[in-house]
Amino acid sequence: MTLSKQKIITIVTETRLESALCEDIEKLGGHGYTITDARGKGHRGVRDAVWAANANIRIEVVCEPEVAKNITEHLKKHYFDNYAMILFTGDVQVLRPDKF
Amino acid sequence: MTLSKQKIITIVTETRLESALCEDIEKLGGHGYTITDARGKGHRGVRDAVWAANANIRIEVVCEPEVAKNITEHLKKHYFDNYAMILFTGDVQVLRPDKF
Amino acid sequence: MTLSKQKIITIVTETRLESALCEDIEKLGGHGYTITDARGKGHRGVRDAVWAANANIRIEVVCEPEVAKNITEHLKKHYFDNYAMILFTGDVQVLRPDKF
Repeated sequence: MTLSKQKIITIVTETRLESALCEDIEKLGGHGYTITDARGKGHRGVRDAVWAANANIRIEVVCEPEVAKNITEHLKKHYFDNYAMILFTGDVQVLRPDKF
Repeated sequence: MTLSKQKIITIVTETRLESALCEDIEKLGGHGYTITDARGKGHRGVRDAVWAANANIRIEVVCEPEVAKNITEHLKKHYFDNYAMILFTGDVQVLRPDKF
Repeated sequence: MTLSKQKIITIVTETRLESALCEDIEKLGGHGYTITDARGKGHRGVRDAVWAANANIRIEVVCEPEVAKNITEHLKKHYFDNYAMILFTGDVQVLRPDKF
């Protein structure tokens, strides 16, 4: 059984960004993503935006560390200052098919 | 790009605790939380409560280690023996705005 | 306050597998699981299956490392080649009741 060390990125943000972020993730090398609807509260530095209840999505991407870095940098550059967004990463071990 | 080492707390519990827990989390220093509806099964020691399907919530809080400790201790003291609740923590690296 | 080192397994797969997987998890020693509905996209090696939007579930199991290994091996053997499925594990610290 092969377990591969990878990164998981979790993004919680506004629902209206869903399709844009999914396109970005794929362009930047993410091979897949998982989205759940979420609600919550948070506030961010710049705009101090209060998140509306039920208007959030939670996106998970499991990917190579290099891809995780690229996605993180891209989101920071293009969304982080102008949208309610939190992004965090962690370490996971991923079950891979034998043929990889 | 600044990534900050923080803790993530995940709480899975009964839906009826949502507003009480959200208040507690904010009072104890959590700056935000993400909630998703969940179903599941589990049983806990004291009351051996079986979780009803679809009656659960999953709450995530990303915070400083000290805040994580305070939230964990508070929930243990006030809820853990009397409600169906699981709580676990992990390590995450969080993208922060430049201005912090 | 006792925090116990355990593993978390996250499985994202087709909704139709929910009841079969829940039975498997319990038989293999998992004492509980949390399920959320999810959507997403991914493709897998063997069948290169594209995941339908909204037809996924995300299952989390917090358990002892040995149980995590058994669940992972079982899912690899029985589902991984024939269904759209991603599985990854991570480290968590779990709040336990005093009586354990």
